Amino acid sequence: SRVVKLAVIPGDGIGPEVVAEAEKVLDAVIEGAEVTFEKTRFSLGAARYLETGDTLTDEDLAAIAAHDAVLLGAVGGMPGDPRLKDANIERGLLLKLRFALDHYVNLRPSVLYPGASGPLAEPGEIDFVVVREGTEGPYVGNGGSIRTGTPHEIANETSVNTAFGVERVVRFAFAQAQKRRRKLTLVHKTNVLVHAGGMWKRIVDEVAAEHPDVAVDYLHVDAATIFLVTNPGRFDVIVTDNLFGDILTDLAGAVTGGIGLAASGNINPDGAFPSMFEPVHGSAPDIAGQQIADPTAAILSVALLLDHLGLQGEAERVTRAAREDIESRDGTARTTAQVGDAITARLRA
Amino acid sequence: SRVVKLAVIPGDGIGPEVVAEAEKVLDAVIEGAEVTFEKTRFSLGAARYLETGDTLTDEDLAAIAAHDAVLLGAVGGMPGDPRLKDANIERGLLLKLRFALDHYVNLRPSVLYPGASGPLAEPGEIDFVVVREGTEGPYVGNGGSIRTGTPHEIANETSVNTAFGVERVVRFAFAQAQKRRRKLTLVHKTNVLVHAGGMWKRIVDEVAAEHPDVAVDYLHVDAATIFLVTNPGRFDVIVTDNLFGDILTDLAGAVTGGIGLAASGNINPDGAFPSMFEPVHGSAPDIAGQQIADPTAAILSVALLLDHLGLQGEAERVTRAAREDIESRDGTARTTAQVGDAITARLRA
Ligand SMILES: CC(C)[C@H](C(=O)O)[C@@H](O)C(=O)O
Ligand SMILES: CC(C)[C@H](C(=O)O)[C@@H](O)C(=O)O
Repeated sequence: SRVVKLAVIPGDGIGPEVVAEAEKVLDAVIEGAEVTFEKTRFSLGAARYLETGDTLTDEDLAAIAAHDAVLLGAVGGMPGDPRLKDANIERGLLLKLRFALDHYVNLRPSVLYPGASGPLAEPGEIDFVVVREGTEGPYVGNGGSIRTGTPHEIANETSVNTAFGVERVVRFAFAQAQKRRRKLTLVHKTNVLVHAGGMWKRIVDEVAAEHPDVAVDYLHVDAATIFLVTNPGRFDVIVTDNLFGDILTDLAGAVTGGIGLAASGNINPDGAFPSMFEPVHGSAPDIAGQQIADPTAAILSVALLLDHLGLQGEAERVTRAAREDIESRDGTARTTAQVGDAITARLRA
Repeated sequence: SRVVKLAVIPGDGIGPEVVAEAEKVLDAVIEGAEVTFEKTRFSLGAARYLETGDTLTDEDLAAIAAHDAVLLGAVGGMPGDPRLKDANIERGLLLKLRFALDHYVNLRPSVLYPGASGPLAEPGEIDFVVVREGTEGPYVGNGGSIRTGTPHEIANETSVNTAFGVERVVRFAFAQAQKRRRKLTLVHKTNVLVHAGGMWKRIVDEVAAEHPDVAVDYLHVDAATIFLVTNPGRFDVIVTDNLFGDILTDLAGAVTGGIGLAASGNINPDGAFPSMFEPVHGSAPDIAGQQIADPTAAILSVALLLDHLGLQGEAERVTRAAREDIESRDGTARTTAQVGDAITARLRA
């Protein structure tokens, strides 16, 4: 039977708690299936940094890259921890993985599940997916400063965008749209970022010409945030750059019931590198170890992972079980493990 | 009596309609006051560009700069108009004015007025102000591309940030906080944009040390969008960069009842150049000429203009009249002029 080598990075804060439940669900859904998961655990994150001074060594990276897929909880220490002042766990670990493993698609579905309640008075039906570029834009780390720390400091950040990088993610987004409601919205800020925005627009127009079955529109990022709260039902597939995607998906998560439910996949569609699945939420160190974090986002990330591995049946079972669990919620407090157990029980039922 | 030289730029689309009402209100509120407004109208925007090919000439700019203040409606033609393909009215006119007139504070109050209804189920009390930097960041126009239009295109955009530019807007924000509820939130993305974000953070920390009476916190821009829909009442003063401010204020406008109500001031606090007041909304060419645009944002921008000119009593009267009008709305459709007339009548009452 097929063996999937899975790298597991529980990380910091609530990461280990939610990953434990995600693994529980994963183990349950593949019981009796023609696939087994061989897991390797990687101790990475703020805790590891504080112990050893390492964020992500070349050896770590090579070892992770030798897997078929990665499941990540969340990384990052307590904000303001003076011992982490010189560490940048986000850049040195999370973004380093996304860039080194060429995760050029950051796939973030936003669904308002029946029973989930968000902040909107009349949310309507919400079911869209954000295809966020993952390896370019303002995230490339192409910044610097001079006269640093003085009143004459100049700090620059350069957003780097390539036709190569934009075209591949745009093509992925069109393919998603064809599997969905055939509507694609480009979000950028073409009126201000005329060079990067102009190139995104040109490439979307070019690829659109090859996909006459997909309806395409464009929104400036500021206008897109308005529609996310006034008419989220208008969206099917959003394709956008790394930074705008970061912002829109947190907002989308809030609108669809909170980032406790928002799953994501950092995907290398070419298969040259393992893809990495993680909840959109962070490590939330303030509530860590209390068994109060919602593991649903991590569990739905397992569904994305299964889908990516071609295990569509298993992916759908996980999504359905999580969906039923959300629908059954009545406000009674449950521990992280109780939510994981409940979803696992539904899977087995 | 005092004479204020006011440049009026009605602009495109609904701009002229809402500016007409804003002027009506301005004329009414200064009746009998020790001040007169000497107005010069500037025909600028997409319409002017289509007629003459000019966006903003040096003569226009010099003439506008010789005024005490500017009232602007909205500029920008019909999206996708092929005749505007090579024009960038936003960059060439609106942003050029903001940069040339050194509008380093873009002040955008967000208030949920009684009677106004936004998309949130439980909005709570919302009353904050965004102090958006107006002359730096990703808006500087420091971008370019090579191999443009080919599959090998590289398009870069550089965000330029200076300690000088950040410190002056941060000081303005702290002064605002001291006049309000003494709480200031810096919004940036320090974990990714480490150089620009690091400088913003350092300067806010330094200025905070001089203002022990102001409580300061920090949010990443993605998290800030979540709080804007789940707990907008937590905000008093937000200080942020040009692009993040653009995004947050559209979202904030939506949350407080729509950008039909959102006013803004592009302010040069030093008084070296005239400040410019404009609704946050755009020219909305699709609904132009139909007398269905809400002029309230333009009218509230007049209140900001009066306040900036030191006419606090008049500013408060305009705000109160607009506020009462909003509170009295019962869903009956009114024309743009009817809303302006109603607010004018309240002023006179
Ligand atoms: C932690 C941070 C670097 C990251 C990002 O900005 O991409 C996070 O916000 C996310 O959305 O996954
Ligand atoms: C029209 C555009 C250039 C402008 C901006 O991005 O600043 C607008 O969105 C605004 O917020 O005033």
